[in-house]
Amino acid sequence: MRLAELSERSGVSTATIKYYLREGLLAPGRQVNATTAEYDESHLRRLRLVRALIQVGRVPVATAREVLGHVDDESLGRTIRLGAALWALPQVPEPDETDPAVAAARREVDRLLSSLGWATARELGPLSPVHRSLVVALATLIRLGYAWDAELMAPYAKLMHQVAMRDLDFLETHGSEAERVETAVAAAVLFEPVLRALHGLAQEEESARRYGL
Amino acid sequence: MRLAELSERSGVSTATIKYYLREGLLAPGRQVNATTAEYDESHLRRLRLVRALIQVGRVPVATAREVLGHVDDESLGRTIRLGAALWALPQVPEPDETDPAVAAARREVDRLLSSLGWATARELGPLSPVHRSLVVALATLIRLGYAWDAELMAPYAKLMHQVAMRDLDFLETHGSEAERVETAVAAAVLFEPVLRALHGLAQEEESARRYGL
Repeated sequence: MRLAELSERSGVSTATIKYYLREGLLAPGRQVNATTAEYDESHLRRLRLVRALIQVGRVPVATAREVLGHVDDESLGRTIRLGAALWALPQVPEPDETDPAVAAARREVDRLLSSLGWATARELGPLSPVHRSLVVALATLIRLGYAWDAELMAPYAKLMHQVAMRDLDFLETHGSEAERVETAVAAAVLFEPVLRALHGLAQEEESARRYGL
Repeated sequence: MRLAELSERSGVSTATIKYYLREGLLAPGRQVNATTAEYDESHLRRLRLVRALIQVGRVPVATAREVLGHVDDESLGRTIRLGAALWALPQVPEPDETDPAVAAARREVDRLLSSLGWATARELGPLSPVHRSLVVALATLIRLGYAWDAELMAPYAKLMHQVAMRDLDFLETHGSEAERVETAVAAAVLFEPVLRALHGLAQEEESARRYGL
């Protein structure tokens, strides 16, 4: 398809597409003559992902370029590729290791991962930004005086493991590795608000069932 | 306890406690003489919640006062009281009803709630800010061209219902209604980042189990 059709089908203006091309967020089309390039479904898919990152996720252009670099790096293993793209997304800052709440949180996260037998999560440990996010979020609870620990988190972790299995089953319905990785990145930005809203609706529903409205 | 002890035990400076008292975020202590007031465990608990809302949730003081008004309104039913406090927290803006993606999202959310038999969620419908959040989040996916529908969301909704049952079981371990409502509000601010991090860790773990690192 030509640029005009790519614009129409994606809902992205030709000026914005040209900007994404210049910024290296979108691969150039196949040049058919000096002034015309031909685009295909992979460009449409990539535009969708660029919009998800930049317009919805508010990710800076440089970060989006870095994320897409990971998405496209076929030399990486699948877990690293699915995860590495997310690692480039905005992360929580490094926790303050002199804070006793951080030390307590780290101890509880270690206990949790041991009790669950999550070997990779333990092995990656603080290398993983999601591990760090968990320590920081739990440290905040502990600092405020909420006594959350490994035992309280374990049933939630098991349910989120079921959610993660569903996530990967869904990714596996996609035909190509490129589509799977792109979908994983888009989901990290777009699907979290859906999951959070489903959680809130389920709380309302369950509360009404137990206690009435 | 006196103000100095309340400050030490809560980790909140006496100046900040006085500010919260002036702003009506904290109930006055029991006046023992012209210059001294006595505080109890309920003040300590409330200070913890005020910090959760203001320091962690970045909720404006006026909104925090509104949330705490709902928390303290014993004339409300339990579901409304648990939920109403959350309803005062920052919400997504009203969706643009002329947008076809919003109409499609609303249709899929209706189908989802019917298929799940979530009667309260259907009855409250757009009155509920979490219902609105779900429509807006799904509309964003649809607008970008990701064909998410009721069938794809249903397994996630069922898992989030299990999470919600666990949430309410946990609330029920708290002795008083005031503690239950306060904990529900604190959890809405503080626990979502924990749940999200557990989801990410579970994805890493499951991906490594299926595909290696």
